[in-house]
Amino acid sequence: MKSCGIIVEYNPFHNGHQYHAKMAREMSGAEVVIAVMSGNFLQRGEPAIIDKWTRAKEALNHGVDLVIELPFAYAVQSADYFAAGGVKLLHALHCEALCFGTDNQSEMDYEQFGHFVKKHQIEINQQYQIIKNNGMSYPQQMTEVFRALYPNSGLDFSSPNHILGLSYAKENANYEKPMKLYPLKREQAGYHDTNIYQNFASATAIRKAVFSDELAQIKQVLPEEVAIDLANSPTVSWEDYWPLLKYKLISSSIAELQEIYQMKEGIEYRLQEAAKVSDSFRTFMEQAKTKRYTWTRLQRLATYILTNVKQQEIANSWKHSHLQVLGFTEQGQRFLREEKKNLALPLITKVSKNLKSQLALDIKSNQIYLLGDERILEQSFGRFPIRIS
Amino acid sequence: MKSCGIIVEYNPFHNGHQYHAKMAREMSGAEVVIAVMSGNFLQRGEPAIIDKWTRAKEALNHGVDLVIELPFAYAVQSADYFAAGGVKLLHALHCEALCFGTDNQSEMDYEQFGHFVKKHQIEINQQYQIIKNNGMSYPQQMTEVFRALYPNSGLDFSSPNHILGLSYAKENANYEKPMKLYPLKREQAGYHDTNIYQNFASATAIRKAVFSDELAQIKQVLPEEVAIDLANSPTVSWEDYWPLLKYKLISSSIAELQEIYQMKEGIEYRLQEAAKVSDSFRTFMEQAKTKRYTWTRLQRLATYILTNVKQQEIANSWKHSHLQVLGFTEQGQRFLREEKKNLALPLITKVSKNLKSQLALDIKSNQIYLLGDERILEQSFGRFPIRIS
Repeated sequence: MKSCGIIVEYNPFHNGHQYHAKMAREMSGAEVVIAVMSGNFLQRGEPAIIDKWTRAKEALNHGVDLVIELPFAYAVQSADYFAAGGVKLLHALHCEALCFGTDNQSEMDYEQFGHFVKKHQIEINQQYQIIKNNGMSYPQQMTEVFRALYPNSGLDFSSPNHILGLSYAKENANYEKPMKLYPLKREQAGYHDTNIYQNFASATAIRKAVFSDELAQIKQVLPEEVAIDLANSPTVSWEDYWPLLKYKLISSSIAELQEIYQMKEGIEYRLQEAAKVSDSFRTFMEQAKTKRYTWTRLQRLATYILTNVKQQEIANSWKHSHLQVLGFTEQGQRFLREEKKNLALPLITKVSKNLKSQLALDIKSNQIYLLGDERILEQSFGRFPIRIS
Repeated sequence: MKSCGIIVEYNPFHNGHQYHAKMAREMSGAEVVIAVMSGNFLQRGEPAIIDKWTRAKEALNHGVDLVIELPFAYAVQSADYFAAGGVKLLHALHCEALCFGTDNQSEMDYEQFGHFVKKHQIEINQQYQIIKNNGMSYPQQMTEVFRALYPNSGLDFSSPNHILGLSYAKENANYEKPMKLYPLKREQAGYHDTNIYQNFASATAIRKAVFSDELAQIKQVLPEEVAIDLANSPTVSWEDYWPLLKYKLISSSIAELQEIYQMKEGIEYRLQEAAKVSDSFRTFMEQAKTKRYTWTRLQRLATYILTNVKQQEIANSWKHSHLQVLGFTEQGQRFLREEKKNLALPLITKVSKNLKSQLALDIKSNQIYLLGDERILEQSFGRFPIRIS
């Protein structure tokens, strides 16, 4: 069965995502569209506005056939690791195509770019070593590297979706049978765009409207089901976890904070002091931010602190990669039945007690996610894939 | 200047406490009454209903001349350590007398008891070794030990105030110049008594009334100032810290929990599981309780977990014992001025940055106490002793 993968977060699901799923099917001619979706914590180091099961259900009702969870250890990561996880899971499912959004340069040949990087990895690494301590953010540094090595590329890593596209291309080129890539130019609404257009708005703009109780404003940019879910289901933001993060930073010793994944360069002192004087997540972030740490990098670190993640837990999760099914349509179920025996990673349809150690990090982060709102349902044990018929 | 010490918690301050201060002065003939008072976390492993500065002020307005803080490392402890801390601080102040409440047996000769224990410490320890794994609580075990060694004593360790009295007596007997002991029989209202009598009620009964918004009921058992403070100041209970304790238990690894002070015998597994299924501190405690762990012992352990206390921090605090002044009347200030040069421990009247490491545990626990209500004022830095003239 011909399949096309998409790598998504759905924070929350909106018309642009529905368009993405539809175009993935059309452009690739796939019979089944597979979404690899972040769970309850996201790439940019945020809790998902609405839980993963609800987001999976919405996706399945709007053009996706199968939703597989991208584990925390891949999801809450910079673009390269996030892409590596998503591409790995799609390859494990023997997906033939990958369709991803891009903000610009949809004319660019991503496959060629992937091969270029694969071929020139050594020079790229060398060039990166030269500038890596220049105080710029990683995206800025990558732009510099490519300007030096590939002066005519005009590559710009400053747009989040474009960075992800480039990361997918690089990662995909490492596989023996790479997926065919389908970049999809975003209509209107850029990633950081906070405006609401006629039928499209960025997830950022939508979240902003949800948290300022202006759901009416965004009705036209969301499927009706999502608008209902956003109105009736518990929605969370970083502010809901702020008391816990503050407590964690205040109650931990410096030595304990230094054990947290990605805690580097003495930032633990700065974070602890910022926590003491801040009374909201936003003021904490503004207090803690430095030129060296982008907002996103700092926010990701905050997620590692909140979930008390150690290097060892990330490594353990990577070692036990798996395909956890969040839901499927009839077509998705048919695909799984056909592929079941050929999958390159273990398929999980139920989190049972004997998977506790393999899934430890995902289970823990889900339990902490629950603390954001007492109405959020259990996220791991006793949950079965959503079936949409 | 003749002084009499009292060792107190004031959770909250009530008429019984005022009577205690008055009788301490009368019975001992002291010119100055010195209270060594627990800070923001108490002997039974609870956050104080109202912060230490407010409680100190109330005491100074109602018969106490000087309030010294009993550090966390002594305060949140079983009777013997609590008593050791209180007695140590009073001895450092060269206090000549100690007046304490007792529920019964006020006829008993506590001084004689203290000397008896000092003399027979080896036999007591041996007897304790024989029964220490019998599954009983520590107070029950001590009752057994004394029944065996001292059959006519009729000693019963089941009443909290009486246990404390015995501990004071034992500890005091170890000093070269023991304080004169003045046991004071409590009028009505026992420690666990939840009834409200005409002018006296236990602190337990008063807290119950505060948290069920029945302040009118307890007006006659409190000084007016305290009633006003309880109505207008932030009051906290364990339930205010429950989300943090739950988060701490869920987000920590078993290895991390095992590092907490007094975490023993595998109780960490039980506590973690109980936290996952509980939605209040009360249900958590009911879930976690075992025959082996009394409510108080478990609650104290919960305080160590909440404040993330390690053995090393307790040892460090003991090593750096000090006399932190929370407030004084003019008479108290006169006493301090006279004794200043002879004190056996350093006097602290202001928590400055250079005391950060000596006072680390107290500063940390105060910061965590603040998380119970955003209106609680800073408890350490920038605070000066309260002066009542």
